[in-house]
This record gives sequence, C-alpha cells and structure tokens, in this order.
Amino acid sequence: MRIGIIGSGALGLYYGALLQRAGHDLHFLLRRDFEAISHTGLDVTSPRGDFHLAEVNCYRNSREIGPVDLVLVGLKAYANDHLVELTRPLVAAETTILTLQNGLGNEDVLAGAFGAESVVGGVAFLCCNRGKPGTVHHLDQGSIRIAEFTKGPSTRVEQLAGIFNQAGIPCEACADLTRIRWEKLVWNIPFNGLCALTNLATDRLLTCPETRQLITEMMQEVVAAANRQGLSKPIDGSDFIEHMLQLTADMGAYCPSMMIDRRQDSPLELDAIYGIPLQRATMAAMPMPRVAMLHALLEATEQKSKP
Amino acid sequence: MRIGIIGSGALGLYYGALLQRAGHDLHFLLRRDFEAISHTGLDVTSPRGDFHLAEVNCYRNSREIGPVDLVLVGLKAYANDHLVELTRPLVAAETTILTLQNGLGNEDVLAGAFGAESVVGGVAFLCCNRGKPGTVHHLDQGSIRIAEFTKGPSTRVEQLAGIFNQAGIPCEACADLTRIRWEKLVWNIPFNGLCALTNLATDRLLTCPETRQLITEMMQEVVAAANRQGLSKPIDGSDFIEHMLQLTADMGAYCPSMMIDRRQDSPLELDAIYGIPLQRATMAAMPMPRVAMLHALLEATEQKSKP
Repeated sequence: MRIGIIGSGALGLYYGALLQRAGHDLHFLLRRDFEAISHTGLDVTSPRGDFHLAEVNCYRNSREIGPVDLVLVGLKAYANDHLVELTRPLVAAETTILTLQNGLGNEDVLAGAFGAESVVGGVAFLCCNRGKPGTVHHLDQGSIRIAEFTKGPSTRVEQLAGIFNQAGIPCEACADLTRIRWEKLVWNIPFNGLCALTNLATDRLLTCPETRQLITEMMQEVVAAANRQGLSKPIDGSDFIEHMLQLTADMGAYCPSMMIDRRQDSPLELDAIYGIPLQRATMAAMPMPRVAMLHALLEATEQKSKP
Repeated sequence: MRIGIIGSGALGLYYGALLQRAGHDLHFLLRRDFEAISHTGLDVTSPRGDFHLAEVNCYRNSREIGPVDLVLVGLKAYANDHLVELTRPLVAAETTILTLQNGLGNEDVLAGAFGAESVVGGVAFLCCNRGKPGTVHHLDQGSIRIAEFTKGPSTRVEQLAGIFNQAGIPCEACADLTRIRWEKLVWNIPFNGLCALTNLATDRLLTCPETRQLITEMMQEVVAAANRQGLSKPIDGSDFIEHMLQLTADMGAYCPSMMIDRRQDSPLELDAIYGIPLQRATMAAMPMPRVAMLHALLEATEQKSKP
C-alpha cells in the first residue's frame, strides 16, 4: 500500500516506521527531521525492540509525493490552517485520509475539502517522543481505534485495521467516531492541560490528593458532556474513569504531548482539545466549568510568550 | 502608645514606620532585616513621600520586647504555628492584639491563647513590598478596616482607628469582622492564587478575556459563600465585584504577595486564603468549585519544591 505521512512528529514517524517495516511503500513529509533521516535513516527505540530504517522516502513538499492510497495525518492540530494544502497533492479518487490528530474538529477540516466519505478518524493511545533528529522513542502503549467520519461500520475501516494489526499496531475498527474521540478526551482534557500548566508529570498529579480529586471531577464533566453528543451507547462514567486512572498510574511519570510542547515553548493544541469540546458541551447544555477554567489558565499563560 | 510588631514583613514595617513617625513607641520583632535596620535604620519609599527612621527598636526575640499596649501582627499565616509563642511575651491584661494577616483562622489562634476579648481583626488594602534589607516600598493604597473578634461595635476599635488615622493610615472601624474578612477574600482568592500559579501580574489576568471571566466567576463563588456566613448585611455581589475589578485595573501590573512568595520559593498562605474558607463554604452548603480547583493546583505545585 502506498502511504503518505503528513505531520511526521513522534506519532507519524513511529506508525510510519512500523508500516514501512511491514512492507508498505511509505512517503514522509518532513520538516525538522528531513536532513537527518535523508542522510542516515530513521532510528526507532522501543521496549518491543529497537530497529533502524536505512532507506526512507523523505520530502519537504507534499507535491513531490503525489497520490497515495492512504494519507496518515499526524499534524499538530494548531497547524490545521495548512492541513488541506499539505494533504491535497496526495489525494486521488480512491484515497483514504486517516487523521490520528488530537481532539475535535480535524475530520471536519478534511471533510470540508475532500468530502466526508474520504475521511476516517482515529485516536492513538501512544506514549512516544522524538529524540534527536532522526530518532523516535516509543515508550509505552501504541494501540489505535479508528472509525468512519460518516459513522456506522465499514469494510474499509476493517481492512485498514487489518493492515495496522499486521504491521504490529494494535488497531480496533469502531463504528462511532464521536464516542472514541470523546473517550480519548476524557484522558486528554485533564492530563494534557494540567501537566502543561503545572509542569508536573502524570504521577505527581495522581499522588497529590487534591489534584487526583480534580482530575476525577474533570473526567466526570467530560463524560457528562460526551453523553450528550448522540453517542451510539453512553460512556459508563465511574467504570471508565476508574479504568483511565489505573491506566495512567501504570504509565508512571509520563509527560503528555502538551506538556512537552509547553516546555519547548511550542504552541498548544488548545482549540482541538479545549475550545471545540467546550463549544460542543455548551451547545448540548452540559457546560464543563472546571475544563473551562483550565482552558482559561492555558490561554492566559499561552499569551505570555506572544508579542 | 507602646506598640509591638510581630511579623515585620512589608506590612508590619510600613505600618510600624508610620506609627513611629507619628510619635508612638514602636518595637519591631525582626528576622531578615534585623542587621540592616539595627545599623542604618529603616527606609520607606512611597508616592506619599519617602522617609527614613534613623533609630528603630529592633529585636530578634519577643521576650526582650515585653508587654505593650498594642500588638500588631503581620506574620505570614503559614507561620501561625509560632504565632502564640511569639506574641505571649508582649501580652499583659490590657493588651490589644490586632492581626492584619491574610485570610481566615488567625483571630481564632490568638483568641484560643489570649481570650477572644483581647483580639481585634482587620484587613489591609496595601500594595507594598520589601526591597533590600532595611527598605520597604509602599506602592499604592494602604487603608485598613478593623473590627472586634467578638463582634459588634466597640469604643476600643474606634480609638484604634483614630490612632491609625492620625498616623496617616486611613482606618475604618467596623462592626462585622466576618464581613470584612470575606470581602477581602473576594479579591485575595482569585488574584493571589491565579497570579502565583501563572506567574502573571493582575493586569495580564484582566486583559485575557478567559481569565477575566474566570475571576468574575470565582468572585461570585466567594460572595455566595460569604453570604452564608451569618453576615450582618449580605454583600451585593454584582456591585462589589464590579468595584473590585475596577480597583484592580487601577492598580496596573500588580504582583500580589502570594505571587512574590512563589517567585521567592517561600511557602504560600494556602490554609488561610483557601483551605479554611473552602471548609467554611462547604459547611454552609455553598461549595466553591473553581476556588477548590485553584487550591488543588496550588497544593500540587507547592509540593514540587518539597522533598
């Protein structure tokens, strides 16, 4: 399968590397890592075994890639202003565009430009960071869940899941994209923002009783709003939250992507993870006051570094 | 009047200096500034005129001060474990103890040791910071409001107010200590904690629309809880909040004491300004969820610097 990676951050590089290792024809749109990967290939470190790809198709411009069967989008959501223009040269009549970006609103951007039927959405449970240029460190997890933007079960999504599973990427084909997106937000909304704001890793926030309680309350707000979004089946709040907290405890001292972005003084994915979910919660008459407060604090501190 | 200052931070030094300049017999318990003030006196800078006190009675130990007519307490509330022991040598049968410390619970500590009738509480609206040892910078405001811990109007409080006013400290004698304490909390609760957490001064928090909205909502929570504390007259939320926001805007880029404490890696007055008010709000069945969230974030980040 001819696959293009738009947004070769940690996620794009890691999944792209696994797909290439499985025999697919990969094409990476690169920026920071272009020089390093062009010259010396891509190094992946992982508890499941390190590996090296010596020959990687690297591009600075997506027009050089041309049409592919599958576009995998891993772009930071704050760069979505460029998403359509970066993706367009890769899209032909039969192309599937799979976005694994964080938060809400990404599929909408792609569907607006390329048609809803070409878009598949998904969420990744992946602990992965970039190292020095040309290196990606897979730390833990790595499974993904994908679903049609147009809702309902689909053969295409099941075939895609099969391709990912064969490449060593545990992948579940789902029927309700809204549900898997909001389930992911139950984790992303408290942990991404609180870790970025406080510069404390996940384990510290779970050890402090006050913030552990706060995380639980924020998760309850997100579940309540999610269950007003027309899900095929409601999220069972208490069970799901307990599961999320346990899963996070097992991850140890994890630094979520937004915390890393802030440490590097990069922009934060505030609209995708906070702004749009807050709008959809308000529209469904289920406001999320603690989430709104975290959003406000992130916005205020974000403006600090702006002119 | 023979006056002892316990807790010679910015507040204690500034008010003590004004009282000494007005002719009273002042005695300062000092720690950080002992050497400097013993040798070269105390410098006050102020938009109302700078002045210098060449001769200042300085002590490292309150036993050397002995009984006074008035104890003025400006100790940081997180040091209240030592408050009784520091104050005891200054207290005789007729001594009045006036605490101008932040938050709730300070009068209770003093009343427990010295009897409720000896205690007067008060709040200061003072923008004042310490400079290099021996120097205090008065920036803006400076008025105080005082009231009996045992409630109701009192001749003693009116006489004290007269003494302060004569010394150039605008002072209002009040009858309801609970009300003036909670009115002060309407300002302290949002601004002290949010500035400390974000390291942004008051003007930045008021300029960002999201945090301005958050500050208003937190003030509404505090007013609602205050109005359940058996006040002689309820606080009129919308008027009072509008007044507080305008007053803060007039202060410009102000850094509240808790923000300065955090920048200096000093402990924060979390119990007095958050913990005890939250308990009293919960006991009055009027929880303050945004205030609780701010408290949680301050607790979690406070633990960062602890072993």
